[in-house]
Amino acid sequence: MVNLTVALDVMGGDLGPLITIPSAKMAIEHVPSLKLILCGDESVIRTHLKEHNFLDHPRISIVHASEQIAMDEKPSVALRTKKDSSMRRALDLVHTGDADACVSAGNTGALLAIAHYVLKMLPGVERPALVSHLPITDSASHAFMLDLGANVFCDSDTLFQFAMMGSVMAEEVDSIESPRVALLNMGEEVIKGSDHIKQTAALLSKTPEINYVGFIEGNDIFTGKADVIVCDGFVGNIALKTCEGVGKLVMGKVMKIINESKFTRLLGFLLNPTLKKIVKRLNPDQYNGASLIGLRGIVVKSHGNATSSAFFNAILEAVKEVERQVPEKIKNKLEVSLLKRS
Amino acid sequence: MVNLTVALDVMGGDLGPLITIPSAKMAIEHVPSLKLILCGDESVIRTHLKEHNFLDHPRISIVHASEQIAMDEKPSVALRTKKDSSMRRALDLVHTGDADACVSAGNTGALLAIAHYVLKMLPGVERPALVSHLPITDSASHAFMLDLGANVFCDSDTLFQFAMMGSVMAEEVDSIESPRVALLNMGEEVIKGSDHIKQTAALLSKTPEINYVGFIEGNDIFTGKADVIVCDGFVGNIALKTCEGVGKLVMGKVMKIINESKFTRLLGFLLNPTLKKIVKRLNPDQYNGASLIGLRGIVVKSHGNATSSAFFNAILEAVKEVERQVPEKIKNKLEVSLLKRS
Repeated sequence: MVNLTVALDVMGGDLGPLITIPSAKMAIEHVPSLKLILCGDESVIRTHLKEHNFLDHPRISIVHASEQIAMDEKPSVALRTKKDSSMRRALDLVHTGDADACVSAGNTGALLAIAHYVLKMLPGVERPALVSHLPITDSASHAFMLDLGANVFCDSDTLFQFAMMGSVMAEEVDSIESPRVALLNMGEEVIKGSDHIKQTAALLSKTPEINYVGFIEGNDIFTGKADVIVCDGFVGNIALKTCEGVGKLVMGKVMKIINESKFTRLLGFLLNPTLKKIVKRLNPDQYNGASLIGLRGIVVKSHGNATSSAFFNAILEAVKEVERQVPEKIKNKLEVSLLKRS
Repeated sequence: MVNLTVALDVMGGDLGPLITIPSAKMAIEHVPSLKLILCGDESVIRTHLKEHNFLDHPRISIVHASEQIAMDEKPSVALRTKKDSSMRRALDLVHTGDADACVSAGNTGALLAIAHYVLKMLPGVERPALVSHLPITDSASHAFMLDLGANVFCDSDTLFQFAMMGSVMAEEVDSIESPRVALLNMGEEVIKGSDHIKQTAALLSKTPEINYVGFIEGNDIFTGKADVIVCDGFVGNIALKTCEGVGKLVMGKVMKIINESKFTRLLGFLLNPTLKKIVKRLNPDQYNGASLIGLRGIVVKSHGNATSSAFFNAILEAVKEVERQVPEKIKNKLEVSLLKRS
């Protein structure tokens, strides 16, 4: 097994090292080939490692960073002024090749801006995209959806690149052969979507490298009709957050009915943990992180209020992407298609 | 009690009279002041009425229409060529004042196009919007959301008008005093939305007639933070359909757990109908119809595969809007605000 190294932004997220250090310990114990570089305030990191009896582990090293980026800090300010932040240090390590990937639960906008600046885009990719998996009804499988909020508006070229990148993710990370790629669109019967979606559909239809299966509506995100669902970041973000809201709504209503009688209350004990798990899965960055793809390096974003197990899952996601060499594969696939189009 | 008349597009929807006639009977029995004009093929209507022992009811009349619009017919073609369709006849009756409102479960795009053409817009409104209620967590209350799919893209003036119209709906139909109006936007921490959303926010902030409460994210649609949620039709349609998808996903997972043992299966019988009801409420036009507002007349759209009770609910929604004189109230509110802005 090849050794691989992941840099962690220890100070990112609402609770910083309180969450990230236990996750680091779990990851080291779980993946024998994994090395971690912990970026952040060294003395704080050492205190937390000591608390977990994990100081001076041979596969853990520390890179000191004197600053940290607040969750509500303006991305452009963070990019310009916080050159010694834990997030910047972690991304720098990916850039220099000292780490194979970076995981952060910090400010999403800042992570996007700094990752874009430090790592740069892959050739042929204009914008990075946030991608994650969503669960599928009656199946252990899932669908990749992108962009989940990195870009407000995307033109047809950008959406085309997202389709390409999502297809590589599904193929490489999930080993799906010829993944079915769909464009998220509104009800066909009303109006068949905006011009740039139609243009993207036209581009995808004539690209044999992509198994384009057409438009998909919101109610089919979870039905397994597509392995990759492509949309702009505004729509993706709202769809995703709406999922979370509906999950909580349905869960609340179910628990209310269950609590109405003694008999059914018993069922609540059985259902409650599973329902909570479903709702959590509907929030992918709380579940296993969302990946920032299109960059010359692997960056996984965990939720600001991720638990230790969610941040641990995000580290595992990064490990998987390193093993499958996702950016390299995206680069190759894009090169082939760009060559054909030119 | 004042008499009121609703025109029904009997032939619209997947099952036409099989659904609409029983709903008409229910509505007539439920609302003593209601008169219905059934638009469609007279002999078919008479056959169905006879089957339900409801022929020659004094509060039911028939307007014959020789054509009907297919669910997949192109709206522009339906508008141009189907001048004797059941949908067109029903809308014509609203236009001439013979009916106070129209209810249809037919082709949404055609209904939009023909309603727009026949009824025309209220002064100061550029585009009609589809609006409906969504349930709120832990409450019997709901939030109005618009546009749900009538318009792909909306500029800031259109979104502003939608906010105004939604506010009137909440005030008049739901008797909410000074309804809280919010704009649906993506996660603030990533990027704060598109330019036209920011422009709409600026417009709303300086309009004292609207109780504008700021941006709302997808996960807060159901938490009761706002009484009116405004977005463009593309986003609204996708958010709404995603809700439906999540509802089914969660329900599927819950039923799977329930079916795992004999004991819990018993409880499943108890939960199943309530769960189905929740999922149904997430699809407003299957629940009580979506209203097409901004027009000089009341039009309620029921789902293509609505059940009799859903189509009945849509008729009741139309009755409510007639009683509260919704278009008149929208007109008045817009006049006041336009006067102030000019």
